[in-house]
Amino acid sequence: MPDEPPDFLDLPSRSPKPRSRGVTHVIDKGLSLRGAEALMESVCDYVDVVRLGWGSAYRTRELRRKLEVYRAHGVPPMLGGTLTELAWMQGKVDELRRWLDELGIEHVEVSSGVVPMPPEEKAALIQRLAGERTVYAEVGEKDPRALMAPYRWVALIREALDAGATQVVCEGRADGSAGVYRPDGEVRTGLVDEIAHEIDVDRLIFEAPQRAQQIFFIEKFGSDVNVGNIDPADVVSLETLRVGLRADTLMLFHGERRA
Amino acid sequence: MPDEPPDFLDLPSRSPKPRSRGVTHVIDKGLSLRGAEALMESVCDYVDVVRLGWGSAYRTRELRRKLEVYRAHGVPPMLGGTLTELAWMQGKVDELRRWLDELGIEHVEVSSGVVPMPPEEKAALIQRLAGERTVYAEVGEKDPRALMAPYRWVALIREALDAGATQVVCEGRADGSAGVYRPDGEVRTGLVDEIAHEIDVDRLIFEAPQRAQQIFFIEKFGSDVNVGNIDPADVVSLETLRVGLRADTLMLFHGERRA
Amino acid sequence: MPDEPPDFLDLPSRSPKPRSRGVTHVIDKGLSLRGAEALMESVCDYVDVVRLGWGSAYRTRELRRKLEVYRAHGVPPMLGGTLTELAWMQGKVDELRRWLDELGIEHVEVSSGVVPMPPEEKAALIQRLAGERTVYAEVGEKDPRALMAPYRWVALIREALDAGATQVVCEGRADGSAGVYRPDGEVRTGLVDEIAHEIDVDRLIFEAPQRAQQIFFIEKFGSDVNVGNIDPADVVSLETLRVGLRADTLMLFHGERRA
Repeated sequence: MPDEPPDFLDLPSRSPKPRSRGVTHVIDKGLSLRGAEALMESVCDYVDVVRLGWGSAYRTRELRRKLEVYRAHGVPPMLGGTLTELAWMQGKVDELRRWLDELGIEHVEVSSGVVPMPPEEKAALIQRLAGERTVYAEVGEKDPRALMAPYRWVALIREALDAGATQVVCEGRADGSAGVYRPDGEVRTGLVDEIAHEIDVDRLIFEAPQRAQQIFFIEKFGSDVNVGNIDPADVVSLETLRVGLRADTLMLFHGERRA
Repeated sequence: MPDEPPDFLDLPSRSPKPRSRGVTHVIDKGLSLRGAEALMESVCDYVDVVRLGWGSAYRTRELRRKLEVYRAHGVPPMLGGTLTELAWMQGKVDELRRWLDELGIEHVEVSSGVVPMPPEEKAALIQRLAGERTVYAEVGEKDPRALMAPYRWVALIREALDAGATQVVCEGRADGSAGVYRPDGEVRTGLVDEIAHEIDVDRLIFEAPQRAQQIFFIEKFGSDVNVGNIDPADVVSLETLRVGLRADTLMLFHGERRA
Repeated sequence: MPDEPPDFLDLPSRSPKPRSRGVTHVIDKGLSLRGAEALMESVCDYVDVVRLGWGSAYRTRELRRKLEVYRAHGVPPMLGGTLTELAWMQGKVDELRRWLDELGIEHVEVSSGVVPMPPEEKAALIQRLAGERTVYAEVGEKDPRALMAPYRWVALIREALDAGATQVVCEGRADGSAGVYRPDGEVRTGLVDEIAHEIDVDRLIFEAPQRAQQIFFIEKFGSDVNVGNIDPADVVSLETLRVGLRADTLMLFHGERRA
């Protein structure tokens, strides 16, 4: 049982679980079963979804037990969109759906970051899956050289939401080197501005694995911004950044209060 | 129970615990409770203090159990200086002291890396806390653009020691990108030279999270240099660097002995 | 007990254990005992050898128990070549052999990455140890400034194989910054081409700790290339890269199959 949390500092408020604002999607890149248990025991309050990155679930021994660990701590697990893409490319979407049913997985990611999936087929896939489970659509390409124009991002995000996606994940890759980032990890700020100008940010989840990227989004959209691809080791750090308990955002949240 | 350690190689000697020279301060950036247990069981002999980085303790479920794990292995835990800074800024130092008492924490860090704390107030805070616990003062700023002049470093270190700090931690941040380092992690060698020329290095703890930084300080000050912000995963590596069991320092310690 | 693995996708085949092609050598840089247990329970199927990096074994409390964990999961442990080099330099090879016997270690690495060991002495050492255990020879230097010419690599690899080494490990360091790589991690492609032109790649193990390096070797030599210095956290990722379950190699393995 967790301790009674301390309460003597003035901190910005955070949405409690279950929440649709201020969500943290963690990426499991091949955590051991015990690693997943240790993680959940310690930080499940701060995690809203765990995504088993790309096709890693397909190569995870003891997958069922791992999924059970996440669920037992109130955190729904999801498989990576790359697996959905490959299944689609091989004409195996029904087989994938059956496997998700067997595994009891209720969340699915539909992306088009690698496979050249025509937009209308992606929308159709989202629509079909949204009838039976919670769909997170991902927009953006994993190729760092792909510099999709902002208006295309906006159009694809709209299409995904219209097709029934609960929220749209803005691509950043597991290392923060593509999609809304330049290859060196710098945020494509003009792109983010244009997306946020057109779409309600509460419907967006920004993949932000690097600390500087997390800081950028917290500074821009506040404590309760939705971020994804958070490394398990960084969950506590992110939570402190969200409320000004780490140097990088301390003055942002607490600077003006100084007597 | 650990094995009987091997003893067939000639290695430089290392101060045994408890020690004031050659100390290793580890940074806990949000380790799980089980992660802390695993770490301690394996490397407690090589760790002198664990610092729960910045304000992470304030967001650590099961904090009391984690602190107990560290103490049970003979390693005193400490909270990050950023928490002290925030408490000071909010006028909550007494509340922080009460919390430290409740938690049974006997070590405290006083820094001024983020909050603009006037030097005389910092000295007063060190003095006040030094009357009741072991104080590590930190000198240096977390902003990588802050290039405080060497004479200021020396003056602030002296003030902190005069005020009662046990040792002074030279800022490097958790990623080794500020304080005594340039933003790319390179050591500000002129600065280190000037500090070491004026202050007994045994009273200093150099934050050195990157391997190249650890190597620099071991080459400069020997096996028993004091270093901090060591990642839990790097404790064994550091210990091997200290005695020439890793490539980077092997010839330094063993080169001349060659027949 | 692991789950029944899924089987609805078409994936390139992988050699099953025990194998001499497509091997994965993992580097243990100071994993805790529990960390080693967690790792093995989850990924032992994908790991062929664990190397306790450099001289870390010499500073590992509970070393015997850790070795036992690896062996209990069918993974032979090996000590790092740097330890062999230091023992050789101090005239303590017999002491090292005795220690390996006590520890029940049947694999040994003979390198010359740090210590200036004359080629004929290295060959003699390989020959002597190959009479009693499985020898992996390592070729290449750990100094990133050492740019050994390709013909020297080929000659040294040949000598090591002729002396009785089972396979030859091509140096890359634990961080992928030397040997077959430039300091920034880029592959020395001309060097790799020349080595592979002269030597059967099944006799080679390429140290490839960075994902981009793993991708390079998988693209060049296929799913069943031998790679080493894989971080424990990256074992699952590597296994997915080997069969096109991660973006970086998905189109490589699955692109042509698209209807």
